Amino acid sequence: MKSPPIDRATIAATAEQIAQRAPHFLRPTPLLRLSGQAVGVACDQVWLKLEHLQTSGSFKARGMMARLLAHPIPAAGVIVASGGNAGIATAQAARALGVPCEVFLPEVSSPTKRAALAALGARVVVHGAVYADALAACLARQADTGALLTHAYDQPEVVAGAGTLAQEVMPGLLHGDLSDLPTQALISVGGGGLISGVAAWCAGDVPVVALEPEGAPTLHAARAAVQPVDVPVSGIAADALGARRIGQIAWDITQRHVQHSVLLPDEAIGRAQAWLWQHLRLAVEPAAALGLAALHIGAVAVAAHDRVLLVLCGGNTDLNALAERAAALS
Amino acid sequence: MKSPPIDRATIAATAEQIAQRAPHFLRPTPLLRLSGQAVGVACDQVWLKLEHLQTSGSFKARGMMARLLAHPIPAAGVIVASGGNAGIATAQAARALGVPCEVFLPEVSSPTKRAALAALGARVVVHGAVYADALAACLARQADTGALLTHAYDQPEVVAGAGTLAQEVMPGLLHGDLSDLPTQALISVGGGGLISGVAAWCAGDVPVVALEPEGAPTLHAARAAVQPVDVPVSGIAADALGARRIGQIAWDITQRHVQHSVLLPDEAIGRAQAWLWQHLRLAVEPAAALGLAALHIGAVAVAAHDRVLLVLCGGNTDLNALAERAAALS
Repeated sequence: MKSPPIDRATIAATAEQIAQRAPHFLRPTPLLRLSGQAVGVACDQVWLKLEHLQTSGSFKARGMMARLLAHPIPAAGVIVASGGNAGIATAQAARALGVPCEVFLPEVSSPTKRAALAALGARVVVHGAVYADALAACLARQADTGALLTHAYDQPEVVAGAGTLAQEVMPGLLHGDLSDLPTQALISVGGGGLISGVAAWCAGDVPVVALEPEGAPTLHAARAAVQPVDVPVSGIAADALGARRIGQIAWDITQRHVQHSVLLPDEAIGRAQAWLWQHLRLAVEPAAALGLAALHIGAVAVAAHDRVLLVLCGGNTDLNALAERAAALS
Repeated sequence: MKSPPIDRATIAATAEQIAQRAPHFLRPTPLLRLSGQAVGVACDQVWLKLEHLQTSGSFKARGMMARLLAHPIPAAGVIVASGGNAGIATAQAARALGVPCEVFLPEVSSPTKRAALAALGARVVVHGAVYADALAACLARQADTGALLTHAYDQPEVVAGAGTLAQEVMPGLLHGDLSDLPTQALISVGGGGLISGVAAWCAGDVPVVALEPEGAPTLHAARAAVQPVDVPVSGIAADALGARRIGQIAWDITQRHVQHSVLLPDEAIGRAQAWLWQHLRLAVEPAAALGLAALHIGAVAVAAHDRVLLVLCGGNTDLNALAERAAALS
């Protein structure tokens, strides 16, 4: 199945639609421009997009609202299977629009995330060990009720919604203005929604590097097989990045616009997460720490002139686990 | 003793000096403009100045760097007595300028803060039960060594440095431009460094409200006595707001420019701190939560048109305690 094209015009139109129809739902999240030295990296600047401060605690709010606005919503409301953040974002978008919401989660999802969903008024169903199992149950239910399905990453509106984050950081690209850009963008990959939105916006004008935990290598494995394939899922960031297979849309876009795919050990990811708290007072989830981890262990090379964009994609994390990692660091 | 005047010109000159002589030390911290609804308050907007993301994890970095740049630094370096944040900020400013630093702390200070100081290369001395005891030991040591003393709040440069935060939020005031202002600013008070810097910048054009925990009422008690007086210190925010007496400079400035002083119960402060994490993914210290606490319990009245500025003044907190409060909230 061929994916519809997603480009800068699609993304800008998506941002415009959300701004008009749900004007207070999304936040233009802060961009913190730090010296490389401030984050312990030998480059000119590191830009941190504080997307964990987005509504719902992750970038997923963008894509889920985009999806809900693109279709008529039936009486059964909306339905989603999600490792957590997409579920929270769908529930929050549904509440903002006043429609019912059902969320299917796998057992690997954190209690914190389940509690957040219940507090948002969603009906929560926990089913299966990993994401793919919850998805199967969700699809069966959707066939029964006819609810509007939001997929955690593999829908064009969801990808375009994620792309609006890149538009905020690099607005000039819409009109081909190449000034004030980062020299590269390091993006975490689970099912590929975020990276494909960002890469569609960058479209080769800013190199985008894909980062994955060794325990959840969907893009890396797909590249080795030259097509999307299932992978086993485990590790520190599995609740946010633990998709079993890269999305078809993400596969197509990353094949065009993403040259490098890098795997990172959990230990480096946990240390980077702790570092962000210890030194910058940013409490984020492990999935949001892959960029800094890559820089700290040298998995992505930087030059002195580089301005590297990192997206802190989510903050829905267990503070006790973070506290423990931070204590181990000091 | 009469304090030297601190006004917008002083504050702007302080910001300029820091920018020139320590150009990468301070960060222009983000201002998050949210709808009142997004923070559960019946007003138009709530502006959150994310000053806990400042270098050193609190606004104190501004005042301490201002103090160090205003005087020649002797071979003995700098010395400070601080409940924590002023010490961390002094140590970080000293390290940035390459001079030695001694920090005196009371026993009430948190292990997290002591560890942070040691990691910054400061010599840490723990002395006495509360701030005033640590200060006495610090002053005796300073008389011996001749080191440059930074006071946690009661020095003109320290107050002017804190004022640079208000300049970032309301830059137009320097030239009398009254557009795009908050309708009121809610500011936490310990020794009064932050509120006097902010009030000197606002200078009556934006009403400033003083907030204190019931357990550390330095300004409130001073107003009752019509002069600065010692108060007993206790409670959830004592490690950051536990000064025993309002500073003389803060007393003078707040008498001119601050009309209302409000006391808040610890329980409301802890709940607001937990709320900021649960709903906005902002991990801050209790001292930074007084503004939201005041709004949530109605201790400060707001009207529908209000745009209320809150300063999240520090993030040097114990994540485990925060996690516990957040769990109790949900």
